[in-house]
Amino acid sequence: MSILFSFPNNDVLAFQLLSYTEMEQGSINIHRFPDGESNIQINSPVNEKHVFLLCSLDHPDDKAMLLLFFAQTVKDYGALSVTLIAPYLGYMRQDKRFHEGEAITSNIFATFLSDNFDRIITVDPHLHRHKSMSEIYTIPAVVVHAADAIVDWIIDNISNPVLIGPDEESDQWVSEVAQKIRAPYIVLTKVRSGDKKVDVSVPDVEKYNGHTPVLLDDIISTARTMAETVKHLRRAGMKPPICIGVHAVFAEDGYETLRKSGVEKIVSCNSILHETNKIDLSKKIIEQLLDR
Amino acid sequence: MSILFSFPNNDVLAFQLLSYTEMEQGSINIHRFPDGESNIQINSPVNEKHVFLLCSLDHPDDKAMLLLFFAQTVKDYGALSVTLIAPYLGYMRQDKRFHEGEAITSNIFATFLSDNFDRIITVDPHLHRHKSMSEIYTIPAVVVHAADAIVDWIIDNISNPVLIGPDEESDQWVSEVAQKIRAPYIVLTKVRSGDKKVDVSVPDVEKYNGHTPVLLDDIISTARTMAETVKHLRRAGMKPPICIGVHAVFAEDGYETLRKSGVEKIVSCNSILHETNKIDLSKKIIEQLLDR
Repeated sequence: MSILFSFPNNDVLAFQLLSYTEMEQGSINIHRFPDGESNIQINSPVNEKHVFLLCSLDHPDDKAMLLLFFAQTVKDYGALSVTLIAPYLGYMRQDKRFHEGEAITSNIFATFLSDNFDRIITVDPHLHRHKSMSEIYTIPAVVVHAADAIVDWIIDNISNPVLIGPDEESDQWVSEVAQKIRAPYIVLTKVRSGDKKVDVSVPDVEKYNGHTPVLLDDIISTARTMAETVKHLRRAGMKPPICIGVHAVFAEDGYETLRKSGVEKIVSCNSILHETNKIDLSKKIIEQLLDR
Repeated sequence: MSILFSFPNNDVLAFQLLSYTEMEQGSINIHRFPDGESNIQINSPVNEKHVFLLCSLDHPDDKAMLLLFFAQTVKDYGALSVTLIAPYLGYMRQDKRFHEGEAITSNIFATFLSDNFDRIITVDPHLHRHKSMSEIYTIPAVVVHAADAIVDWIIDNISNPVLIGPDEESDQWVSEVAQKIRAPYIVLTKVRSGDKKVDVSVPDVEKYNGHTPVLLDDIISTARTMAETVKHLRRAGMKPPICIGVHAVFAEDGYETLRKSGVEKIVSCNSILHETNKIDLSKKIIEQLLDR
């Protein structure tokens, strides 16, 4: 017997996941107290059940204590196992000390989740220096790939695309999508200075002026890199690009920034609830769930 | 060799603590990223040192990940021990399931801190159903009492006081202060419905109309209880009271609410930085630190 709970802002995806399975729908309340403390209240029986919690981990600091309270409490109530479904997994970027004295938060956060959950399922985690989830997660970690869903969306919606990766980190991922749709691709180089300032070098792209540029990235956060890239592509004479992000984090005014940069359209997967969600991952997530 | 770090808003108390000891002052940066993640950066060597972190735990959800990152990182860098000095300790009030399905957050939070720190020092934690810190903390927990510092302040500043405890939970504590200053005291009864709505029953207080009422509580948060009490006392013909809180949490508009309720003065200990801080705890904290 399995039961799925979801934290606020994850209800739409939860509904879709439930439509594909026999899982029971769990009910939960989140309580935020005026003094900055919080609590959860689990309204469905979990005894002798496999419990799943759907909670995307954008803004993870706001959710960490609630995750802890949830996991411990369903165990108190006799859950057989607790699986975290975090379509977007936070704290994957600080995978080394960029400056002396910093915490390697990707590792510490992984230990925190591993200590409290029995299994984690996520979509395209930002693996860079860590080559796999098992380097930092001690619990089984299931990775769902968004590539096929993105491929399907591009084939259905865009004719004559050229895929563009915003930096070297996206190379392998963008080339995989490009090969599946038999489209050309370009990977740009990014020079980052500080959290926010980003320069982009755009190679010779004139030969793709007849194509529809499709910018692909795993995370769109402040969107500065992508917005700069859009401007460079436009200056190089390309058509207004389609921007696709797996994870629509959109920190600060990132969404406004990108919308005003000269894009044709912004599209994201539904790992984080956002009005740009066009690419549904629920089927892919359920396949992985049922596989194990 | 010992070194003291402090999180933002704890610098004033840190400065006072340092003035009483030979402890080294540690330097740390806190970084909050636009996407809701955070990190710390430790700028002082901690290898082979006993590390102390001063961080009052009002608004604990905002600080929990930073505490985790700090504790793990100083251990990475070879700290001999990590002691958390949390003059105000959050999550002490949910010490049972008030409703079915809730997390007992006091216990879970205690385990979280116990897993990451070697020792904790706090001031008058809100112990109610838990009779001692050791019921929920598995690490050594040192409790500093504010009573003596409050006694000294009342003796120095108020003539002919009558002490008033706002509810039964404060009974033992208010009676202790009252006995030390040889003043009379009254303990009221509180009827709470929900987070915010509070009714107060005020017994016959007319006989103290010549006294200066001193309302004492451990935590002043939304201040609704205390503000209601002030109004009741005023209606009963008492002088405008002095309100003393150990911990000036002042959630939401609590401070404004209390100021406008008809008080003479609001005074707090410096466990949480606030403009009402008049009663210094640093000497008491240092005594406990040096004792161990």
